[in-house]
Amino acid sequence: MKKIKIGAVGLGRLGRRHAENIAFRIPNAELAAVCSIVQEEVDTVKKEWGIPYGYSDFEEMLTNKELDAISICSSSTEHCRQISQALEAGFHVFSEKPLGIGMEEVQLAKQRVKAHQGQIFQLGFMRRFDPSYAYAKQKIDEGYIGKPIMIRCYGVDPISVIDGAIAFAEKSGGLFFDMAIHDFDLSRWLLDSEAKSVYAIGACFQYKEFAAYGDIDNGAAMIQYKNDAMGLFYAGRMCAHGYHIETEVIGTKGSLRIGTVPYKNLVTIANENGVTNECVGGFLERFESAYLNEMQNFVDCIIENRKPDVGVNDGVKSAEIAYAAAESFKAGKIVYLD
Amino acid sequence: MKKIKIGAVGLGRLGRRHAENIAFRIPNAELAAVCSIVQEEVDTVKKEWGIPYGYSDFEEMLTNKELDAISICSSSTEHCRQISQALEAGFHVFSEKPLGIGMEEVQLAKQRVKAHQGQIFQLGFMRRFDPSYAYAKQKIDEGYIGKPIMIRCYGVDPISVIDGAIAFAEKSGGLFFDMAIHDFDLSRWLLDSEAKSVYAIGACFQYKEFAAYGDIDNGAAMIQYKNDAMGLFYAGRMCAHGYHIETEVIGTKGSLRIGTVPYKNLVTIANENGVTNECVGGFLERFESAYLNEMQNFVDCIIENRKPDVGVNDGVKSAEIAYAAAESFKAGKIVYLD
Amino acid sequence: MKKIKIGAVGLGRLGRRHAENIAFRIPNAELAAVCSIVQEEVDTVKKEWGIPYGYSDFEEMLTNKELDAISICSSSTEHCRQISQALEAGFHVFSEKPLGIGMEEVQLAKQRVKAHQGQIFQLGFMRRFDPSYAYAKQKIDEGYIGKPIMIRCYGVDPISVIDGAIAFAEKSGGLFFDMAIHDFDLSRWLLDSEAKSVYAIGACFQYKEFAAYGDIDNGAAMIQYKNDAMGLFYAGRMCAHGYHIETEVIGTKGSLRIGTVPYKNLVTIANENGVTNECVGGFLERFESAYLNEMQNFVDCIIENRKPDVGVNDGVKSAEIAYAAAESFKAGKIVYLD
Amino acid sequence: MKKIKIGAVGLGRLGRRHAENIAFRIPNAELAAVCSIVQEEVDTVKKEWGIPYGYSDFEEMLTNKELDAISICSSSTEHCRQISQALEAGFHVFSEKPLGIGMEEVQLAKQRVKAHQGQIFQLGFMRRFDPSYAYAKQKIDEGYIGKPIMIRCYGVDPISVIDGAIAFAEKSGGLFFDMAIHDFDLSRWLLDSEAKSVYAIGACFQYKEFAAYGDIDNGAAMIQYKNDAMGLFYAGRMCAHGYHIETEVIGTKGSLRIGTVPYKNLVTIANENGVTNECVGGFLERFESAYLNEMQNFVDCIIENRKPDVGVNDGVKSAEIAYAAAESFKAGKIVYLD
Repeated sequence: MKKIKIGAVGLGRLGRRHAENIAFRIPNAELAAVCSIVQEEVDTVKKEWGIPYGYSDFEEMLTNKELDAISICSSSTEHCRQISQALEAGFHVFSEKPLGIGMEEVQLAKQRVKAHQGQIFQLGFMRRFDPSYAYAKQKIDEGYIGKPIMIRCYGVDPISVIDGAIAFAEKSGGLFFDMAIHDFDLSRWLLDSEAKSVYAIGACFQYKEFAAYGDIDNGAAMIQYKNDAMGLFYAGRMCAHGYHIETEVIGTKGSLRIGTVPYKNLVTIANENGVTNECVGGFLERFESAYLNEMQNFVDCIIENRKPDVGVNDGVKSAEIAYAAAESFKAGKIVYLD
Repeated sequence: MKKIKIGAVGLGRLGRRHAENIAFRIPNAELAAVCSIVQEEVDTVKKEWGIPYGYSDFEEMLTNKELDAISICSSSTEHCRQISQALEAGFHVFSEKPLGIGMEEVQLAKQRVKAHQGQIFQLGFMRRFDPSYAYAKQKIDEGYIGKPIMIRCYGVDPISVIDGAIAFAEKSGGLFFDMAIHDFDLSRWLLDSEAKSVYAIGACFQYKEFAAYGDIDNGAAMIQYKNDAMGLFYAGRMCAHGYHIETEVIGTKGSLRIGTVPYKNLVTIANENGVTNECVGGFLERFESAYLNEMQNFVDCIIENRKPDVGVNDGVKSAEIAYAAAESFKAGKIVYLD
Repeated sequence: MKKIKIGAVGLGRLGRRHAENIAFRIPNAELAAVCSIVQEEVDTVKKEWGIPYGYSDFEEMLTNKELDAISICSSSTEHCRQISQALEAGFHVFSEKPLGIGMEEVQLAKQRVKAHQGQIFQLGFMRRFDPSYAYAKQKIDEGYIGKPIMIRCYGVDPISVIDGAIAFAEKSGGLFFDMAIHDFDLSRWLLDSEAKSVYAIGACFQYKEFAAYGDIDNGAAMIQYKNDAMGLFYAGRMCAHGYHIETEVIGTKGSLRIGTVPYKNLVTIANENGVTNECVGGFLERFESAYLNEMQNFVDCIIENRKPDVGVNDGVKSAEIAYAAAESFKAGKIVYLD
Repeated sequence: MKKIKIGAVGLGRLGRRHAENIAFRIPNAELAAVCSIVQEEVDTVKKEWGIPYGYSDFEEMLTNKELDAISICSSSTEHCRQISQALEAGFHVFSEKPLGIGMEEVQLAKQRVKAHQGQIFQLGFMRRFDPSYAYAKQKIDEGYIGKPIMIRCYGVDPISVIDGAIAFAEKSGGLFFDMAIHDFDLSRWLLDSEAKSVYAIGACFQYKEFAAYGDIDNGAAMIQYKNDAMGLFYAGRMCAHGYHIETEVIGTKGSLRIGTVPYKNLVTIANENGVTNECVGGFLERFESAYLNEMQNFVDCIIENRKPDVGVNDGVKSAEIAYAAAESFKAGKIVYLD
């Protein structure tokens, strides 16, 4: 069995998860190198997992000719540059979203990917690989709910991580770019259409700290798509019951929802409060399978030399919507795309 | 519109509800008289609702020739005698369960009803008139789940009424007779078969007070029916989340459940506990429609001169199972009916 | 017991239900007169229910001095005129929504009610009297979910009544006025704030017949309220699973939903499709209790001489939002109220 | 990182899953050898996955001194012998349930394990390692529902595999031994008590083929435990909606259920049938995590030299209940254990 040798940059919470998946859960992949600006993270992973190479310098890792591919999960500010460099160095590239900070970087990333058509590039819109989302997409494609006419997407972080969100606010790109970009991608994918216009509202309802960066703690957006379909979006940072990612698609013949109750597991508790389902606490818990499946898909695409379903264009289009939403919110007006 | 004039005996919680339904919610009925050994209850209802006649003596009420029917919701110890007297006096009779205390009274009640075939007699197995149970029965009769092969019935009182249950323990007839008799009736109705054997277990898990009367706070029974169908029963007095009445029927082609979550209403709450449905607090809340519908049925049967679907035989058969369960529990052996 | 004598105009599906509630389910009310331009409806009800007076002419009914109050459930085009006339004639008035057709009539109705402050006027926003909505409102007022920051309201008619909707399209006032007006009222009530701006989109996705009247079969609106709260609305005419009225309120500390699954009853079915809850088929089924409770409230307000919580101003404000939504959709721009 | 080298016998559906987990999903394990009486299975796995050693003879595999442990997933008839031989040869052993066919083999297996106390032995009661069951156990141990007083366990195979069940009926050991043994183990674990008496009933309701082997297609059992707790069990072979494994534990302060609706995923579908959740289709789908976690636990126990929580005694005790249930059903009497 041929194994794709991957070098992974970024060993934070999600980066470590990606690395772990590559190392231990993807049969036809091998975690051959890890890289982090935090030397201690590199040392720990190398030793604990027995990884051959460790780097604190990304460009140095790119000189390792044993590697087939690079997996990027560094800080968002590094994405654009690292994508470009890894592609230039001849590697297949998997990158976490976003493609970059600001539409200029995003467009630059797009150009670089286009310039290396022979190399596989996949963007980390992992929700498409979540079993529930994949199942929903299949049902829709089979015509099960008729023609989709509306989508509703919720993306709400648990209140437990509010401190981190505030600390990160300056660099996050704002609520719509940081949180709702996954939902904007889902809407394009599930409706099979592009956004025509965006109108967004919101406020700092509880955490005024976000206002210093022109950001908000809760916001909503309404999008009209080119095929007339409608989109309702809600993003927030203060979910009491856990990590709430919910999507609904209404079609001409029926509808479906994904994650209405984000069950932690199959346990239902009945006590003096009533009958309760506890909920997932965060993205690593909710999308455990999705993170694994997307990396498996990346590796399979390399081996089979086929283009991933989620590529650079999806990153560009979703970023366009996110920036349009931010602009709409700031200007208080409808923003038209294209 | 002809109105059936009813005299109602018993004005406790449920008795008052029956009286109220007759007075205000059944178009073709009139609450013409009320009777209670508590004179104050009689006076209050007479005055507040404008009821023509009030009695503290049941036999005196029976001399009122304006009345067409008697509704009995007095203490269980009075049921058998009052059923007999009301029938003797020529009235149609609706009676709360049970038919009497002990199989002797139950059989006596049966004889009296049989002796007055021309008069309508209906027993208060109200669950059959609950919209959900009625809907389930209809689905089953239509063959929707194939042939029923198993039933599971839960009947659990809320912990909030445990003090009353303890105070009433001496006269209740025991857990199986007091609580599960409704479930035994449901099983006969939904399975369309009679019990062949009963085996019951249980204990005083928390409230040793019941032991003084040979009773238990939680018990279970397994029944085999003449058509081989199986029944699993659980009765208890300590439900934390409310009043839990649940029934499941498994058929050869599918299954259905009634009341898996005994929703208080359509509100779902998401907070730090998770996603919660609050539950109904007691029988008057859960079976509000059922109590109304059964009395409407009684009145309609009188007007249309047709036999109610739930009659004295259902009371006898269910009591037989309940007493068999109690006997089984006490003797630690399987009890065979007939 | 004093009984309020009510004359009811309009004996269509909902009108007949109101009349029936007054006649048989509200202890302190009496249906003393019925009125309909369809003489047969009047004759039938008079005879079947034993109602003293019947009219085919509304103004004639207003000359009946035995009456205390008028309940209006005629065609929407008659509401404004009949409200005015009934108030002029000195009666308390309950009227179905809307107050009239077009903001001019709505404002006229408001003036007439203001001119008769001594008489009780209640508008038929019955959802406020639905046990689930009332419970949700209470929880919110108790601070259970913190400060409300977002509301989402769905109002979707079952596909089974699409033919009627098309036939009625010319006079309906459009999707937002006909369907979403209840949701606009709910949003004001549950958020305790007034709308500041409205943006609406939509299309004829399946039934082009609505286009002839400048109307749509599915639409969405996003509202910003004066307290910055956000509102997402969806109205449609093609629900496959039944009558879907769903509301969600997200607060700073938690959230609640009403009617996420619009259960028909407590029966859950498991068969080859999976595990299924059937849903309510229409408004009379879903809001049976609400229609009864609102009329009971109207009668109680008369007897106790207190102002109903839902009055003419609620009708005006909700109509303003509905017309703003329609204008927004037609002009493709954000409409600011006031 | 030290890797435990495992030889796996049996490459049927579940055997292959175990082998795959060992090979690719357990970081500190290595699938060093596979064995099957079907040579083609051995060849395929060896080649596809790059496994060093392949055997068609079990005893030959035991001579491979590179191996640390043996994983047994062969036919149930081989379990007892292979457990004994593998232990004799000095290996740690993981074995699928049951320990053997008939109590004699089961007891023999127990003796052999006892005779090799220094070697790790783990039995495949994987449900204990399912995240939902593990979570429930933890909640119970924390006192969340008070003292457990009743357990209800359902284990029903999907109708889709009925043909296989009939073909396998002769060797299955019967419904209670084949299906309910997992539930009997769960009951001991969750109630923390041993069975005192068992009473079981059942019939061939649809598939008379089972009768030829004294077996049934659906059965129920009621168990009383030494701590007085009660158990209700239902096992069947004809589930229409999928693979239904459900457990409920009722305590003195609350209750919990695991798998009331065995959700396939987080997708809910609303169409003309109502609102539906599709369900899992079989054991590999439902217990995917459990199979992985139990094998990870086995490997960790070897490395850390600690005793697994589920061992030979659990296999013996559960088998005793299963045989008691079968005996009870056949004799129509209560069977007392010990």
